[in-house]
Amino acid sequence: MAKVAIHRKAHFNAAHRLYNSDWSDERNALVFGKCANPHYHGHNYELIVAVKGEINPETGFVMDMKRLKNLIESEIEDKFDHKNLNEEVVPFKSLNPTAENIAVVIWNILREKIETRLELTITLYETSRNYVVYSGE
Amino acid sequence: MAKVAIHRKAHFNAAHRLYNSDWSDERNALVFGKCANPHYHGHNYELIVAVKGEINPETGFVMDMKRLKNLIESEIEDKFDHKNLNEEVVPFKSLNPTAENIAVVIWNILREKIETRLELTITLYETSRNYVVYSGE
Amino acid sequence: MAKVAIHRKAHFNAAHRLYNSDWSDERNALVFGKCANPHYHGHNYELIVAVKGEINPETGFVMDMKRLKNLIESEIEDKFDHKNLNEEVVPFKSLNPTAENIAVVIWNILREKIETRLELTITLYETSRNYVVYSGE
Amino acid sequence: MAKVAIHRKAHFNAAHRLYNSDWSDERNALVFGKCANPHYHGHNYELIVAVKGEINPETGFVMDMKRLKNLIESEIEDKFDHKNLNEEVVPFKSLNPTAENIAVVIWNILREKIETRLELTITLYETSRNYVVYSGE
Amino acid sequence: MAKVAIHRKAHFNAAHRLYNSDWSDERNALVFGKCANPHYHGHNYELIVAVKGEINPETGFVMDMKRLKNLIESEIEDKFDHKNLNEEVVPFKSLNPTAENIAVVIWNILREKIETRLELTITLYETSRNYVVYSGE
Amino acid sequence: MAKVAIHRKAHFNAAHRLYNSDWSDERNALVFGKCANPHYHGHNYELIVAVKGEINPETGFVMDMKRLKNLIESEIEDKFDHKNLNEEVVPFKSLNPTAENIAVVIWNILREKIETRLELTITLYETSRNYVVYSGE
Repeated sequence: MAKVAIHRKAHFNAAHRLYNSDWSDERNALVFGKCANPHYHGHNYELIVAVKGEINPETGFVMDMKRLKNLIESEIEDKFDHKNLNEEVVPFKSLNPTAENIAVVIWNILREKIETRLELTITLYETSRNYVVYSGE
Repeated sequence: MAKVAIHRKAHFNAAHRLYNSDWSDERNALVFGKCANPHYHGHNYELIVAVKGEINPETGFVMDMKRLKNLIESEIEDKFDHKNLNEEVVPFKSLNPTAENIAVVIWNILREKIETRLELTITLYETSRNYVVYSGE
Repeated sequence: MAKVAIHRKAHFNAAHRLYNSDWSDERNALVFGKCANPHYHGHNYELIVAVKGEINPETGFVMDMKRLKNLIESEIEDKFDHKNLNEEVVPFKSLNPTAENIAVVIWNILREKIETRLELTITLYETSRNYVVYSGE
Repeated sequence: MAKVAIHRKAHFNAAHRLYNSDWSDERNALVFGKCANPHYHGHNYELIVAVKGEINPETGFVMDMKRLKNLIESEIEDKFDHKNLNEEVVPFKSLNPTAENIAVVIWNILREKIETRLELTITLYETSRNYVVYSGE
Repeated sequence: MAKVAIHRKAHFNAAHRLYNSDWSDERNALVFGKCANPHYHGHNYELIVAVKGEINPETGFVMDMKRLKNLIESEIEDKFDHKNLNEEVVPFKSLNPTAENIAVVIWNILREKIETRLELTITLYETSRNYVVYSGE
Repeated sequence: MAKVAIHRKAHFNAAHRLYNSDWSDERNALVFGKCANPHYHGHNYELIVAVKGEINPETGFVMDMKRLKNLIESEIEDKFDHKNLNEEVVPFKSLNPTAENIAVVIWNILREKIETRLELTITLYETSRNYVVYSGE
């Protein structure tokens, strides 16, 4: 059967700051600039989850889009939306919440919930000008 | 010569319903939800056709964009636009018009019209939140 | 207090055809072209509801955006989404579902649910290239 | 001379929470929901500044767009971008940073810097689905 | 009958430079900066034409969108697209092709072709960050 | 470490014409149509630069986005923005400035400035409907 990648867009609004706790405040300010602001700033993150696999001939679906939508809501939006990533989202207690690291964290969460026959790619827009893509490489 | 992928966007507005004729109406409603509505619903489909190959050193083109535009118009837009996909577009008499299957049908139609030295990829947006990509795998 | 217009975007996917039941099929085809296709076609309608009024000094809101979102869902999206407008949405049994008329119908529905001290404007995108605006004039 | 409205887009990324300091935490949570999260959340605010007036026949400009761009940068972006609105932007120490109130604050700041012969309108997108417009009424 | 504003988007790609022939090259460079480059630069202009009036009860249209589309093509796109505005589009032989002036010129051209009972508004995007609106005031 | 592709958007506005100096004017007009207009036309080019590599565990960055932004500004925007590509940008004195060739030229310029451990991909939108992608193949 033909292999198709289906994509679903979602979004969450969150506060964060870029910060390496092993470094001095001076070095954090030097490397991360205004992104290191200890009072935080925030973003409307736009998330695209792509799932690639063979079309099921009975349904015409690679995966039910409603199931994918629900998975993104329960596993990502409910945990990230209207949160402070550094303070309230577990992996970022010890991991700097750069767009790169957020994409990897989201990929790891969803990878456990989606059948291994399906390839998974995460695209995360931090702003309309900056975005990252991670496929598990 | 350098290999570049050129992309052309197009669009068509169509009605469809999701429906497997081997199933009961109950099962169709269960699996496809409101997408199975027998009175149909519809979408503004956004189509991106990508063609990848070597740049022709005389023209600087991979393929003449006007020719690609005309091909999409005559082979896809004229046949799909302002149509009921289930009722009026031949492959979907027996094939469920999911975004996945529509992308494969479009790929198959265009593959016959474009030189085999050129790689072809179809991206189809069913809504601004859902889209699929097919490259002939 | 300052008067501000708040805007909320929503969307629904529907089938329709343009058709005047007082006319012959020939005249419908002549005036409405491929939009008169009796098998229907469809759109992803994008809706923007604007509500203008004074800011409440206690909340900083003109109107609670969550209440507006819920109103749009219950009064418009639940009734229009994944529907055939001509067949399944009452006002269009006898009213041609042009973008203009759909906008007026939505305005009339929401006008009854929103306090009269607030001005209401409906913007409706039929496609990304065609849209209409209605303010009750 | 013809009167034209010129528009310039800009953006800033900021953290905020919705909060009325006269209320209990319970009432704040009840009215503002997850927007009241004391750890903050954030947005990519998109700002459109419109300035309307007669075209200067010598330049063909209503106002030099570069001057408008610089004004938005120095008066708004430098003060709001990568900031916590509640903690670091003066008016919001005592004013709830709803989109409505932020738009009014921006209008008041720019109104003092732009000639009174020119009409000023502020459009502020908090997310791609929610935005407000303020013209000084 | 209800009054609705219908909107149609179009686009043209053109070269231009900002230049006042009554001024020295030095003054042109001072006022218009890199926009005065004598070798020209260019834009993808996005045009939105709005026409406001009463809905025709027979058709449900304010004006036939196909007629509006054809008018924009014949009167604007055919004359502006892939042209050098300063050199090849008559009004700009003596008028600086700022976004403001281009909008006024387009309004004047279309005003003669559209019934006077209909109000006309032109929105012209020079870039995705800069745009102007003109309604004949 | 995980390999992530970071993307940065930029833009430049330029004039160009399509032209092969080895051909007669007639053949240029025949092959390139209105794009061969000797008076030039222009575009708002949108550029996306993607850089793929392992995340640096200290910073959480593949590459500092500010450094990438500055590189695009100094190497591409400063040289291409508000320019006539055929007349003022060196490679296009002898190379037809099609979107394909512009993407290859940009890739070659940036490839020299970015560490070889990082993969580079250029996406260039000539209009919102036409774009090209080049990865150095």
